Amino acid sequence: MTILSFLGAASRAFRTAPASSKLLLLCTLSGGSLVAYSDSNKEKENQKKKVVVLGTGWAGISFLKDLDVSCYDVQVVSPQNYFAFTPLLPSVTCGTVEARSIVEPVRNIVNKKKGEVRFWEADCVKIDTANRTVLCKPVFGDDPTVDKEFSLEYDYLVIAVGAQVNTFGTPGVLENCHFLKEVEDAQRIRRGVIDCFEKAVLPGLSEEQRRTKLHFVIVGGGPTGVEFAAELHDFIREDITKIYPTVKDHVKITLIQSGDHILNTFDERISSFAEQKFLRDGIDVQTGCRVVGVSDKDISMKIKSTGEVCSVPHGLIVWSTGVGTRPIVRDLMEQVGQGKRRVLATDEWLRVKGCQNVYAMGDCATIDQRKIMEDIAAIFEAADKDKSGTLTREEFQDVVDDILVRYPQVGLFLKSKHLMNVTDLLADAEGNAREEVDIEGFKLALSGVDSQMKSLPATAQVAAQQGAYLAQCFNRMKQCEEQPEGPMRFKDGSHHQFRPFQYKHFGQFAPLGGEQAAAELPGDWVSAGRSTQWLWYSVYASKQVSWRTRVLVVSDWTRRFIFGRDSSRI
Amino acid sequence: MTILSFLGAASRAFRTAPASSKLLLLCTLSGGSLVAYSDSNKEKENQKKKVVVLGTGWAGISFLKDLDVSCYDVQVVSPQNYFAFTPLLPSVTCGTVEARSIVEPVRNIVNKKKGEVRFWEADCVKIDTANRTVLCKPVFGDDPTVDKEFSLEYDYLVIAVGAQVNTFGTPGVLENCHFLKEVEDAQRIRRGVIDCFEKAVLPGLSEEQRRTKLHFVIVGGGPTGVEFAAELHDFIREDITKIYPTVKDHVKITLIQSGDHILNTFDERISSFAEQKFLRDGIDVQTGCRVVGVSDKDISMKIKSTGEVCSVPHGLIVWSTGVGTRPIVRDLMEQVGQGKRRVLATDEWLRVKGCQNVYAMGDCATIDQRKIMEDIAAIFEAADKDKSGTLTREEFQDVVDDILVRYPQVGLFLKSKHLMNVTDLLADAEGNAREEVDIEGFKLALSGVDSQMKSLPATAQVAAQQGAYLAQCFNRMKQCEEQPEGPMRFKDGSHHQFRPFQYKHFGQFAPLGGEQAAAELPGDWVSAGRSTQWLWYSVYASKQVSWRTRVLVVSDWTRRFIFGRDSSRI
Repeated sequence: MTILSFLGAASRAFRTAPASSKLLLLCTLSGGSLVAYSDSNKEKENQKKKVVVLGTGWAGISFLKDLDVSCYDVQVVSPQNYFAFTPLLPSVTCGTVEARSIVEPVRNIVNKKKGEVRFWEADCVKIDTANRTVLCKPVFGDDPTVDKEFSLEYDYLVIAVGAQVNTFGTPGVLENCHFLKEVEDAQRIRRGVIDCFEKAVLPGLSEEQRRTKLHFVIVGGGPTGVEFAAELHDFIREDITKIYPTVKDHVKITLIQSGDHILNTFDERISSFAEQKFLRDGIDVQTGCRVVGVSDKDISMKIKSTGEVCSVPHGLIVWSTGVGTRPIVRDLMEQVGQGKRRVLATDEWLRVKGCQNVYAMGDCATIDQRKIMEDIAAIFEAADKDKSGTLTREEFQDVVDDILVRYPQVGLFLKSKHLMNVTDLLADAEGNAREEVDIEGFKLALSGVDSQMKSLPATAQVAAQQGAYLAQCFNRMKQCEEQPEGPMRFKDGSHHQFRPFQYKHFGQFAPLGGEQAAAELPGDWVSAGRSTQWLWYSVYASKQVSWRTRVLVVSDWTRRFIFGRDSSRI
Repeated sequence: MTILSFLGAASRAFRTAPASSKLLLLCTLSGGSLVAYSDSNKEKENQKKKVVVLGTGWAGISFLKDLDVSCYDVQVVSPQNYFAFTPLLPSVTCGTVEARSIVEPVRNIVNKKKGEVRFWEADCVKIDTANRTVLCKPVFGDDPTVDKEFSLEYDYLVIAVGAQVNTFGTPGVLENCHFLKEVEDAQRIRRGVIDCFEKAVLPGLSEEQRRTKLHFVIVGGGPTGVEFAAELHDFIREDITKIYPTVKDHVKITLIQSGDHILNTFDERISSFAEQKFLRDGIDVQTGCRVVGVSDKDISMKIKSTGEVCSVPHGLIVWSTGVGTRPIVRDLMEQVGQGKRRVLATDEWLRVKGCQNVYAMGDCATIDQRKIMEDIAAIFEAADKDKSGTLTREEFQDVVDDILVRYPQVGLFLKSKHLMNVTDLLADAEGNAREEVDIEGFKLALSGVDSQMKSLPATAQVAAQQGAYLAQCFNRMKQCEEQPEGPMRFKDGSHHQFRPFQYKHFGQFAPLGGEQAAAELPGDWVSAGRSTQWLWYSVYASKQVSWRTRVLVVSDWTRRFIFGRDSSRI
């Protein structure tokens, strides 16, 4: 009895005492049971599944922020030890916002969580899905002692490495263009713009040469290109011309877009508002032009309508179009049998197709949405409970919820057809409701649905939602193993462990300069003008990853209002 | 009469009308008189003396700020288009203050003035004193169209190019050390420090290797080296160890000083206060050590007392000692017959010795103070008005003011001897006042004076005062030509055009970290501790070159108090 009560007291003390006194307590006891304890403790630690996260962009950080790291042994690999708020990169190019105001160290973000996350500043150079390891290489090229590759084992691998720039094979782009994907790019552009002005005012240049130096070309009329053009125009008009008055009339900004309109992923009212704004601002928008080559002096483009190729001299080019696959992802695609695809494909649960326990999200992957027509027979069979060979409205109604979750394109189709009820799909050609359909009728009813499938855009919004979604799945991994919460598998009647990822579009902004912005808001609202710019300010301030960056970004904006932008070349 | 009144009206209109209407007016008239007008106007413009300023550091900017640019045709050449508040560079290395908060574009500074100042972002590669031209090369190495050298003519040349780092020929320093002279240096150090921590936490390193990576070595115990050591210690203790907890006990900071004490230009109370503070902080101060070689792994030093050479591995070295002459200045020295000197010499009016109309100030030159003993005979002769061969107290009193201005070492000598009155110099060996001295007695009386001559330190304070002084000389060039305000030339009794430059020491600060600073204040006051740090904050805020940088620096300090320093590697 006394022995038992001693052990009980010891065990209670053990649980409540801090680590150092535990050691002391252990030393006062003896024998095999303690060795067993420490072993089982280690084993328990080892039982924690190893999660390796590649990349610390929107998807990776959003995943890490929401993940319950106490349940996993988490390691993060990224060549950058910070997260950058990329939507503000165009502002950084002109000094409206400082580079340091939009970055937050990864360790600061993950240290706020309970449990440990280890971070390695390294590039992942090889993913080995067979051995479940990733090979990493530190990014300090100059130091041989730390230049050794190391490998990390994983139980789950989360790939969120983002995309690289895509030149579409255009010659000379890599050598002669600036890009706008990283913080360093933005800093380089800032120095480049100032350089152009310093060059243009040098003595001994002809007027023609001065004009060339101050010809800024932006390739790509998407949100980034348009925002950069607007920022550059504001910077030059509000700040630069005051201090380089002799060359202010030599400046020209050209925006080259291969499509017929700039901002063509936006509502066309926004697109034409932007075009008119740029026309008033004197920004030359060249639509229907494809860049065919770039040299250190000229940029050549082909006018699509006439086939004519023309060449103009430039001072600085920013290439902001195209999303390309990184070599590490390309290598993985070969391994998992996706070698012929352009982009890494995942299923609706963000799992990389063709391998186990590997997830991919953000710009480095696309979700390969399952077509409803591929499963149409199974759906029919599963729905036709009485095996009558026909589907009644009631039978269809029973599976509708699962269909809507598993095949979100059905919902989009209904919306596009302005149908209120899913069962209206079963109506005949004249629109009269039918009580029953056979398999052929069912196929016909759903035949247009898959055309509604669209791959998600490569935006921060999508990546952040994917990261948060995946973290929720990881957090409820065990729980959902026992109680699956996903839709029915029509083939065998069982359920998917999780609901598939579904993107919610909260709208998008396009700042157009001069304190004006255009926005597409939820519910198909469109808004443009000064009030929208203020909405933009408040949304972007609120979306910051930390209070530090929030304060810094707002104070940068304030500073710009009071003192303008700095034109020191640092 | 009508013709005369027409001409009068036209002439009035001409004076009040803007440039474009002047042209119109010119076109409505005709004949030789107008050509003569435009010629004479051009001539008047040409009559403006051409001033070329090399460099935009403390001396150059201070000169430009005070110069009346409407009287001169001013051109500025500098490889940097900004002025940097260099005393805050150590703060930039650790992110206490952001780089952009301490820089101000040169054009912003000079644009505030009436009259035009032209600025060229270029390196001066050759000064040709014979032809009064400087050859400049733009700093954009990658662009052949603007890579052409251009030359500028000058009537007056102001050299304020600063100094370069001096390695004292120590092998490996240039390749393996960081310096702390430019803004870019500070930014590189900041990235370097973060890199060391990222390297040290990588997997697969031995404890020894981790310790090596986190061994920060500072060479030079002057104000810059000490301040950097203090900043680094604060950065690591307050911010870095929180986010790299696993290696916080591996960090070591070593400060190597060749002298016996750090801060040896300061009062010795400050020097010992600093040493004690560093001892408490765990900063290893190695005095009496001279660095003899640096490799990418080790730094070798010789302990002066024992002659022993030891070698320690390092993670990062900052070399903050020595002032070297730039090649362009070295080349000028050869031209003007100063080839054997170490540093470019100017006279007390900042005029480069050995050539005409060339001025030099700041770290690139030293003032070669005229010894009183060289002129002693002429002084005696000029003072001995009655040519009696002896100097009475009254006769001496008459020339004392001129002597004190021309030979400031006399004042220093009086101060060092605690003499109240200059004529006390004439006292005999026993200290008894004498009524008369002969030439030998006069020589004897002044024999100790020249030992008080000291060259000025290479500080921002000296450079700024020199710039302001020279601008005042330039502004009153004409006025002082007619009415010289300088002291008497003893040889011929005429007067120097200007008073010679005289440095006023307003004290100096040494921030020691942990919100403590030491200061030498005017009147031989010494202060150290927290209140001094607050004094430092207020002085440095008030000394900022513009309201923009003032607000930014103060908001950076505030940000640091609230959020700490950022450790993103950008």
